[in-house]
Amino acid sequence: MIYLDNAATTPIDNEVLQAMLPYLKENFGNSSSQHSAGRVAANAVLYARDKIAKILGCPAEEVYFTSGGTEAGNFALKGVCAAKGHGHIIVAETEHPAILESAKDMQKLGFAVSYLLPDENGIISPSAIKSEIRRDTVFCSVMHANNETGVIQPVEKIGKACKERGVFYYCDCVQSAGVLPFPTEFCDGLGISAHKFYGPKGIGAIRIKNGAKISRFISGGRQESGLRGGTVNVAAVVGMATALEKAVQDSEVNNKKIAAVRDWFVKRVLTEIDGTQLNGDNLNRVPSNANISFDGCDGENLLFLLDLKGVCVSTGSACSAGAVSPSHVLKAMWYKDERAKSAVRFTFGKYNTKAEADKTVEYLKAAVAKIRGGKG
Amino acid sequence: MIYLDNAATTPIDNEVLQAMLPYLKENFGNSSSQHSAGRVAANAVLYARDKIAKILGCPAEEVYFTSGGTEAGNFALKGVCAAKGHGHIIVAETEHPAILESAKDMQKLGFAVSYLLPDENGIISPSAIKSEIRRDTVFCSVMHANNETGVIQPVEKIGKACKERGVFYYCDCVQSAGVLPFPTEFCDGLGISAHKFYGPKGIGAIRIKNGAKISRFISGGRQESGLRGGTVNVAAVVGMATALEKAVQDSEVNNKKIAAVRDWFVKRVLTEIDGTQLNGDNLNRVPSNANISFDGCDGENLLFLLDLKGVCVSTGSACSAGAVSPSHVLKAMWYKDERAKSAVRFTFGKYNTKAEADKTVEYLKAAVAKIRGGKG
Repeated sequence: MIYLDNAATTPIDNEVLQAMLPYLKENFGNSSSQHSAGRVAANAVLYARDKIAKILGCPAEEVYFTSGGTEAGNFALKGVCAAKGHGHIIVAETEHPAILESAKDMQKLGFAVSYLLPDENGIISPSAIKSEIRRDTVFCSVMHANNETGVIQPVEKIGKACKERGVFYYCDCVQSAGVLPFPTEFCDGLGISAHKFYGPKGIGAIRIKNGAKISRFISGGRQESGLRGGTVNVAAVVGMATALEKAVQDSEVNNKKIAAVRDWFVKRVLTEIDGTQLNGDNLNRVPSNANISFDGCDGENLLFLLDLKGVCVSTGSACSAGAVSPSHVLKAMWYKDERAKSAVRFTFGKYNTKAEADKTVEYLKAAVAKIRGGKG
Repeated sequence: MIYLDNAATTPIDNEVLQAMLPYLKENFGNSSSQHSAGRVAANAVLYARDKIAKILGCPAEEVYFTSGGTEAGNFALKGVCAAKGHGHIIVAETEHPAILESAKDMQKLGFAVSYLLPDENGIISPSAIKSEIRRDTVFCSVMHANNETGVIQPVEKIGKACKERGVFYYCDCVQSAGVLPFPTEFCDGLGISAHKFYGPKGIGAIRIKNGAKISRFISGGRQESGLRGGTVNVAAVVGMATALEKAVQDSEVNNKKIAAVRDWFVKRVLTEIDGTQLNGDNLNRVPSNANISFDGCDGENLLFLLDLKGVCVSTGSACSAGAVSPSHVLKAMWYKDERAKSAVRFTFGKYNTKAEADKTVEYLKAAVAKIRGGKG
């Protein structure tokens, strides 16, 4: 198998799994319990929270564990809106469904929502944010790096625009965590998901700046300062902290290696296959992502033909899998339906090799020829 | 260590961990992905959902995965209320904080809430439910077995009372799953949490009867029929299904074994230590639980003295750990603060032995004597 869908999920690093195993075996205590078994678990959670906070660059009490990136986005958007009661929200059209769908929920509850279009490179303009901010704007969400195109947003400028007007700025860092420096100082909230950086599924975190007003998301026990009830997933928390630490430590080396493979792949595809176009700003993009449209091809067909060869890629994001309509991200970038429909997302990871990229190019050539020849 | 806090959490069964490991290693795909790696994951999720549904006695499409029991309770209560928009809720005073706190949230949004008191044995009367139901009652929650006392509620009668009046009945089965038959036919919704039956933390499920109106809880991708977005925690889902299957298969043997150890322990404590009282109905109780008050002792002190001997017990539930006030469950049973404050919860599991029970009795005698002698 050649796995080029690292934006959907990554394999767990063996080091991460080894760190988790004691908490799946002998150290099984509930971190809320007051006895020795509980304390072992609580200490692990404490240590993990500290580690993550240090990496994010914030106090430990600003870090709340969630079940993943989607919960993080829901928590931030709905939590801030619930604390305010009413008002106006700004979200980019290219946000993850976690944000877009949460915004729709708030719209039903009476909130006004502005959906901002990106330019044709997928970038959201900070000045557009600035002019969209109203007196009653309470929340703004523009992600760090897009999950479909890998395009990096000008989060520093967007953060400043929001800060000037007292708007809570949430930055979804699910695709950038462990790849880019965290924009902690520029935002009020950010979210991460462990399985995107070689950690386990089912665990994520949200950082909420001290002083920001936010309602609890899951009501129950006193876990996570009462904002997110439920027994803490100790093993997964330990796994996430280990994974994040490793990802950040190795980011320079990995980014370079991954970008080299990705760039080689993109170069070969664009030069050796006619009618191909790279989607999204190529100067502001995470090293892993290559989103390419193939004229006259349906992305889904390409996915299936590559899958037959054991190559895993995607169209759009995994979260939208099964969707009939083309990518909302590419459509928002003023791309016609056709270009969006013919797009395939290749996302490289630290385990991918140049040889895999080369093989994929060969399979792609054959697949594109087959489809264009009407045999797809 | 003598672990007598199995109501807080249980160790993962090795068989369960072995079933999970492939999905923490080579089968790491995102179950929403459309390629081979995704299909392996999706098939595992499909198989697990089928297995759980079969055990619950409902169609697979009625089972939704959550991050645990607390999320399940939030999902049910808030989801049903959000779908209705307004109305009246009935909850027992002895419910888990997941339900009680969610009810408070709805109260803030304008819902009326009736909190029902149990009798002094901890049982909620079905006729009290009946007379509490109003025209606008939309939701009722009475758990299957209580987490602090183990008391089993008359869920069949409560379910019938709700059904007659078209009220959505949610039954928290977190403490009864794998122990008692599921009350699926008597309720519209029920929740489970894997780490209570020798499965992993961070995963649970909710069953919502087809046709019941419920709003989505986590908005995002199309996972869980669009009602609960976020990448599915594949390994944990597999673990939960394996754990539930095993717990149900072995329940007769385990229940008998656990009840024998628990009964022996209770008999010794009540006869050999003066001023002890069993809390909660002894005829309707899960086999694992012994909630005992020790006159003149502070439960917290007993907990700490037992902890020094390596015995893990609790006062109240782990979710309320750190709470200064005595158990809301015992207080609701018309027990005075003093009796509630002097209570300790011992919850036995399948790995506990009679020898452990005996050792604990000896430690308890010494601890009680120490406290009563003013040296605690």
